[in-house]
Amino acid sequence: MPVSVAEEKEKAKEKVLNAICNDVIEQIRPGAKEQAEVKALTELIIANLNSKAMEMGIDAHAISVGSTARNTWVSGEADIDIFIMFPEATSDQDLEAKGLALAKSVCDRYEERYASHPYIHAYFHFGDREYDVDLVPCFAVKDPSRLKSAVDRTPFHNEYVIRRLSGSGLEDEVRLLKRFLRCLGIYGSEQRRKGFSGYLCELLILKYRSFVSFLKHAAEWRYGERIDIEGHGKYRGDEPLIVIDPVDAKRNVAAAVSLYSFSRLIDAAREFLARPSHEFFQLKEPKPMSESEFRRIAKERGTAFVVVRFRAPEVVEDILFPQLSKAEVSVRKLIERNDFVVYRSGVTVDTDTDEAIMVFELLVWQLPAIKKHIGPPVTARRHAEKFKNKHSPPFIIEDGRYVVEVKRRYTDVVSLLKHELKHCSLGKHVSKAIEEGYEVSWIEETRFSTGIGLFFRDYFGYS
Amino acid sequence: MPVSVAEEKEKAKEKVLNAICNDVIEQIRPGAKEQAEVKALTELIIANLNSKAMEMGIDAHAISVGSTARNTWVSGEADIDIFIMFPEATSDQDLEAKGLALAKSVCDRYEERYASHPYIHAYFHFGDREYDVDLVPCFAVKDPSRLKSAVDRTPFHNEYVIRRLSGSGLEDEVRLLKRFLRCLGIYGSEQRRKGFSGYLCELLILKYRSFVSFLKHAAEWRYGERIDIEGHGKYRGDEPLIVIDPVDAKRNVAAAVSLYSFSRLIDAAREFLARPSHEFFQLKEPKPMSESEFRRIAKERGTAFVVVRFRAPEVVEDILFPQLSKAEVSVRKLIERNDFVVYRSGVTVDTDTDEAIMVFELLVWQLPAIKKHIGPPVTARRHAEKFKNKHSPPFIIEDGRYVVEVKRRYTDVVSLLKHELKHCSLGKHVSKAIEEGYEVSWIEETRFSTGIGLFFRDYFGYS
Repeated sequence: MPVSVAEEKEKAKEKVLNAICNDVIEQIRPGAKEQAEVKALTELIIANLNSKAMEMGIDAHAISVGSTARNTWVSGEADIDIFIMFPEATSDQDLEAKGLALAKSVCDRYEERYASHPYIHAYFHFGDREYDVDLVPCFAVKDPSRLKSAVDRTPFHNEYVIRRLSGSGLEDEVRLLKRFLRCLGIYGSEQRRKGFSGYLCELLILKYRSFVSFLKHAAEWRYGERIDIEGHGKYRGDEPLIVIDPVDAKRNVAAAVSLYSFSRLIDAAREFLARPSHEFFQLKEPKPMSESEFRRIAKERGTAFVVVRFRAPEVVEDILFPQLSKAEVSVRKLIERNDFVVYRSGVTVDTDTDEAIMVFELLVWQLPAIKKHIGPPVTARRHAEKFKNKHSPPFIIEDGRYVVEVKRRYTDVVSLLKHELKHCSLGKHVSKAIEEGYEVSWIEETRFSTGIGLFFRDYFGYS
Repeated sequence: MPVSVAEEKEKAKEKVLNAICNDVIEQIRPGAKEQAEVKALTELIIANLNSKAMEMGIDAHAISVGSTARNTWVSGEADIDIFIMFPEATSDQDLEAKGLALAKSVCDRYEERYASHPYIHAYFHFGDREYDVDLVPCFAVKDPSRLKSAVDRTPFHNEYVIRRLSGSGLEDEVRLLKRFLRCLGIYGSEQRRKGFSGYLCELLILKYRSFVSFLKHAAEWRYGERIDIEGHGKYRGDEPLIVIDPVDAKRNVAAAVSLYSFSRLIDAAREFLARPSHEFFQLKEPKPMSESEFRRIAKERGTAFVVVRFRAPEVVEDILFPQLSKAEVSVRKLIERNDFVVYRSGVTVDTDTDEAIMVFELLVWQLPAIKKHIGPPVTARRHAEKFKNKHSPPFIIEDGRYVVEVKRRYTDVVSLLKHELKHCSLGKHVSKAIEEGYEVSWIEETRFSTGIGLFFRDYFGYS
């Protein structure tokens, strides 16, 4: 009977799905040794911090937060997060000065980084490997509605997730989801990715109770999908995905998820459910496209590529990438205002050379020397007279308006950008970097760096 | 004092204006001999028609109408219009059969033409030259609101104008206006021109009392300008110019005046008033642009020209031209739907070769081999699945939609038109003509005929 055949098929597929998930879990779940190491290192740093605090007369205590605290990290990717909690009454200056001094006192190798407040990013060699550890000073506020700094929310997230997730057996499901998203290039809420944060992954698994169940729901998501685990949401916004923060009813945990990340997930969820495969969990080596392969593809396409290169401003990625995106949009508009046609575009940072690179693929990159300049309606006498005084005949009349033909200033995109790029609205740091010098050229005339090769690998969808 | 200097200047200009107008009037007013000849020929034909009608037992009588009846024709351009009036009760069949038979009985050389009803266009050799004479059967209706045929209104127009204009001294002003408009290429309400009819010129002079006064008003016209001499207008329409028919309150005499003709007049009125010159009244020989001159201009512009040629359908111009315009718009849309960019375009009929010619000047006439095919939003699951089944990967996601890259079918405008022209909406007769064969080519590859040379002379504003 057809129904039972379909049922059998469905069952068989579920079996495959479960087999794959179980396989992957075995690969990505940290082993006993890794778990022990992470736990030991975390406890060691916390103990050091607390005793140093005592020594230094600082009223603060350290806690473990993030994926290592919640046992949701993927093997080999443990980033240890330790928060140094100061009393709510501490001043901003004290938090910063004392917090950083205390953090530095327990590290050998570290750098100072900056989010909303400064913090310490340290490297600890421990056991067989090196661990990245963030040491973040924050205020121990009483209530997440009374934050003094953006990071103060984290301890509440930590508490919430630990209470619901720890020992529930759902940790592995979170790991599966994180790996799945990482392979899609949409794991992480930083501006470069605009994807799904670790906390968001945990909440989604808490909601749907398994990775596969989550995918089945995500496959049906519509724009503006709303998830409110605690049923207390007061958030109104028009992001593609809205996940109300269980500890803060006015916050969307998924605010950073771009339309692209949202759509990419939905697409991948359907694909994986329809044709389950281990491939969805295999991290690919970032292999740059070779220049010859690029040339072959570009020739086949028949489009032209213009590359803009300049020294990447020395700011954190979360500031740099929004500015690069803004600059990309702004330059696209400049190009299209001048009647050329952009097919696609993108930005990247070449970490080898510290260059920011904007790439514009063009359908129309050269234009004739003339263009129409459309004037006022003939009936608007005063404007008409001004227009006729300003321009030379012949005056064509089109749709009741004067039109003159004028010389087009830039007949190709490279000359346009060489002269007009600086006048685009580019964002503060990008603008400053461009002021200091930039190169605009057809791709044939520029160095095909590794960064460009990596960019095109993703660009052509061969990632 | 500056005021009186300005006044002096104004007076001097008025003097120049009047001098020019008087000069021109002397040139274009028919001399006594021409007047006598036209009068004699008209009376002769009418007498012949009336006596033939008696002979043939036809209940009809002939009258003289139009510019020769009203003494508003321009010297050398006399077209004699004679209407054969049948009783209102006559059947359409009788009007046609008897009207044409009667008309033919008084002519030697003639052809049958067709407007709303058939009529006879005859040639009479008389005095020193040949005259074109229209012999038009119509119904002698009691009231212009009870027309049986479109031409029945003419005798009422005739009566109205003769009563107001004859002997008023305004006839010369009408002639000036007609010549002015003819030199601008906007005299005549036929579809090819969409300009000002003779009757409209007469009404405008009746309204404004002189050519110069008319120009002063026209220089200030706004879109939708409304003139209602009898103050009885019931017409509602959105044409640029509305002149209520004194004999039919529901009709716009200026309905045929296109936005172009309207604007062109306003512009020329201002120009003539500002810098009066005899040039405005000098008819130019239609001198075609030479191929070498065209090539020089085209090279400077950097644009490409595509020419479509086909045998002109054998229909009257008033049917042919609207269809050609429609075809032009339709082909422009086809070109732009395929992502090429039209700069300007035009149509013409080469009367030497009986060819219809469409010309498209292009800013973008070649495109790369790829194009984006934009699919459904990722969230629209059913559509998304259909789309993915139909197309091949990679699937790019842009703005939340699937996008695939497909091969562009036509990478240049000539190949596009060669293959797709027939599928445009072209109008019945043009469509049929195109079915029978057409040529599409870059202008360099086609014969640069006189018709094309004439077209480009106007096109580049060197008329």
